[in-house]
Amino acid sequence: MNIGIVGLGLIGGSIGLRLQTLNHTVFGVVNNKSNQEKAIDRKLANYVTTDLNVLKKCSLIFLALPIRDLINPSKELIENLPKDSIITDVASIKGPIIKTWENLHPLFIGSHPMAGTEYQGVNAGTIDLLKSAKWIITTTPKTANNSIQVLSKLINSMQCEAIFTTPENHDKATSLISHLPIFLASSLIHAVDSENDQMVNTLAKKIASTGFSDTSRVGGGNPELGSDLAKYNYENILSGIKALKSNLEDFEKIILERDWQTIHNKLEQSKDIRSNFIN
Amino acid sequence: MNIGIVGLGLIGGSIGLRLQTLNHTVFGVVNNKSNQEKAIDRKLANYVTTDLNVLKKCSLIFLALPIRDLINPSKELIENLPKDSIITDVASIKGPIIKTWENLHPLFIGSHPMAGTEYQGVNAGTIDLLKSAKWIITTTPKTANNSIQVLSKLINSMQCEAIFTTPENHDKATSLISHLPIFLASSLIHAVDSENDQMVNTLAKKIASTGFSDTSRVGGGNPELGSDLAKYNYENILSGIKALKSNLEDFEKIILERDWQTIHNKLEQSKDIRSNFIN
Repeated sequence: MNIGIVGLGLIGGSIGLRLQTLNHTVFGVVNNKSNQEKAIDRKLANYVTTDLNVLKKCSLIFLALPIRDLINPSKELIENLPKDSIITDVASIKGPIIKTWENLHPLFIGSHPMAGTEYQGVNAGTIDLLKSAKWIITTTPKTANNSIQVLSKLINSMQCEAIFTTPENHDKATSLISHLPIFLASSLIHAVDSENDQMVNTLAKKIASTGFSDTSRVGGGNPELGSDLAKYNYENILSGIKALKSNLEDFEKIILERDWQTIHNKLEQSKDIRSNFIN
Repeated sequence: MNIGIVGLGLIGGSIGLRLQTLNHTVFGVVNNKSNQEKAIDRKLANYVTTDLNVLKKCSLIFLALPIRDLINPSKELIENLPKDSIITDVASIKGPIIKTWENLHPLFIGSHPMAGTEYQGVNAGTIDLLKSAKWIITTTPKTANNSIQVLSKLINSMQCEAIFTTPENHDKATSLISHLPIFLASSLIHAVDSENDQMVNTLAKKIASTGFSDTSRVGGGNPELGSDLAKYNYENILSGIKALKSNLEDFEKIILERDWQTIHNKLEQSKDIRSNFIN
């Protein structure tokens, strides 16, 4: 297949690397000459250009753009998408993007591979990022059957697992397991850094180990993504923060009550629950 | 050197594996026959026994026991520690342990290697766990100079970095970067699991990826450790929870105010701050 990828950042670049190994011809579009050079160096696509016109050749196109650019797509992008090509995105929210794109293109289908690192840009993509990833496909009554079939077949051929759900359920589930952790991890980093005793503050930075590194990782990610998530998954993220605060307050209360057995039980429960999440 | 390790769990077992590669003779003491067999199978020490009497041969002894067993040590353990051997522990809190042990043994010195996984027990230790770890040594006016010198030399020979501080500063700094993340990660797991919509709850578990896995990891650890930390690092952990809640509330407030620029700035700050923690 001739496949287009608009944006060769963390996800777009990783898709480009993977698809080339499956003998597709990949056309990557980037936003400036500097990214074009880097993407060519890194072989993120067979052809890398800044000219959206190249999408005319493609029968399937990934829009691997920031959320804000998907919600407010450029006129030039829209005009260069062939009406008979299948179009998908890879963004972390689905509802508002699908609302926009179902009115713009008859074969649009929303999707979202569950993978990430704290890196961004044309240097971030890797051939292994999407290895065995769950890849959510969101369907609505308007989604064309052919889009579902072609995209899910491609996803499975990439050795990812296609998972089907509605945009609404996607946005609720990801708010909990993916978006909330960003605000939580950022809050942790700010909380630690708010330590006023300079000796302790410096020591904390010096001795921070894998526990802190892992817990805080997603709080060190792309700030633009985080603020877009807050904007476009507003209600779900606020509910998540509320639930999290309530659980933290439970811990605070039982610690204040010196109820060590209940603390033990709550930690044992979370250990058990977590094992259902980690496959 | 003849080195004793009481407890061959995650940390004790890892120390045993490492020290054997440096040509020390390691005497491991475990609490029952089943653990003895497993520890022998895994070669966690040169000799593994359930008999504390073996410590009589050792010039340096690691007490790699749960916090509660260090705060309330058995009479048998105390009686089997030679008065001229250097004794250290490896626990995640220092103040209350040092308070106990400085009255029990003249050459006691508190220490704490900054390393961990979510696993525990005689199957948990690995030869790489302590690789390049920061290893905190806490000194007080009562600490013998010889204990400081011998222990720090051994730690450096294990290719760990010895870092010196007071028990009080240790307990404050670790409450922030190591203990607080446990309660935060457990709260996250409980918050996600409190989702009442069963479709969303199931989907969240199915699609949880590296972001959730990393952020929640330390909430899936040893519940006994977590409850001991709450008990023995009580004030510091409560302060940490308070600071974390306050930062979460800041996010809640600015999201409610739809102040996307401030959200972006706070996320950018946490990204910058985090880079000072991760070496």
